[in-house]
Amino acid sequence: MKFYDCSTAPSPRRVRIFIAEKGLEIETVNISIADGEQLSDEFRAVNPNCTLPALEIDDGPNILNTAGIWAYLEDKFPDPPLMGRTAAEKGHIADIRWQIEFNGSMGMAEALRNSTPRMKGRALPGPDNYEQIPELAERGKARALKFMDRIEGMIGEKPFVAGDSYSVADIDLMVFLDFAKWLKMGLPDEAKNAQRWYKAVSSRPSAKL
Amino acid sequence: MKFYDCSTAPSPRRVRIFIAEKGLEIETVNISIADGEQLSDEFRAVNPNCTLPALEIDDGPNILNTAGIWAYLEDKFPDPPLMGRTAAEKGHIADIRWQIEFNGSMGMAEALRNSTPRMKGRALPGPDNYEQIPELAERGKARALKFMDRIEGMIGEKPFVAGDSYSVADIDLMVFLDFAKWLKMGLPDEAKNAQRWYKAVSSRPSAKL
Repeated sequence: MKFYDCSTAPSPRRVRIFIAEKGLEIETVNISIADGEQLSDEFRAVNPNCTLPALEIDDGPNILNTAGIWAYLEDKFPDPPLMGRTAAEKGHIADIRWQIEFNGSMGMAEALRNSTPRMKGRALPGPDNYEQIPELAERGKARALKFMDRIEGMIGEKPFVAGDSYSVADIDLMVFLDFAKWLKMGLPDEAKNAQRWYKAVSSRPSAKL
Repeated sequence: MKFYDCSTAPSPRRVRIFIAEKGLEIETVNISIADGEQLSDEFRAVNPNCTLPALEIDDGPNILNTAGIWAYLEDKFPDPPLMGRTAAEKGHIADIRWQIEFNGSMGMAEALRNSTPRMKGRALPGPDNYEQIPELAERGKARALKFMDRIEGMIGEKPFVAGDSYSVADIDLMVFLDFAKWLKMGLPDEAKNAQRWYKAVSSRPSAKL
């Protein structure tokens, strides 16, 4: 098994944290997006989509994104479960992941990719080049901010995003919040439950990765 | 259990097909997006995100999107498996789903929502109103077309998108192609494997739903 990582991008970080929470050791290769290594012929042979993370496995085709890698590792190494124990937990965690990814992470990615000078012509990840759309940067920011306001209600009194156990929903939300700092966005001061939760998940050893 | 459906939208259709492929009967309520029923107080009490599909369950909080509903039903009713049997299959199917959804379905949703007159001010699903961005409609169309060109390679000689068994990846891709007809987009004539696959999945009884 070989994990293709990028130390500066949020999605590979989601996989790094997942691997650490499972207590696994997986051979890792760093691909520098800053240097455009994801567009090299060598990496295209691993992942023609030119995105990180990717996972080479012994029992099937390479897996080319976070959702696939999580599904594979969760089945292969079920303990501790990070995607739910019961049907209701599995459904709820998948539900929350989608909300975080669709409203939060995608909004923020739109904001960043459509405004940062170094991403000119690279407004979407992948092999194709797309020009930035300034209006989309604005909309993405508005969308991520609206999502930010909902986090307090999402956490409530619970120890973790999806209930009593740490899960991929916590990984997604923490990585979103850490990445949001690049756009100078953060939790509102009055979001006490969310602040308490963020402090707890950020102090886990996996969060340092 | 109660399934909140919308007969005209592509995401609820993904759940209808899934339910039929599992051979389940679930009490169903139709919510008309055309009439704005998803924004009513009554439906907000079911799903504050104001999106369809949604599933009310007896053993947990309501599940508010396709990914969550699929994860729940797959665990509760494992036969026939629609999300993979082995770890490698589960990973591969989740991987392909993301590719179809991110490159195909989202591109098409961007194209449609940012250009159709009846979606003015509703460029994103959910409780918040966003204005259309014409440039994003163009980009979405380009993205969906690029994805369309890759389908032939994705299917290859295989009977189904993810290999030998029908799975959620087939549901996602078929629903994408049927919805693409609204934008007058379709498989290229020379995509023989993709045409053969589309004919086969479209002739399943679940595809009529």
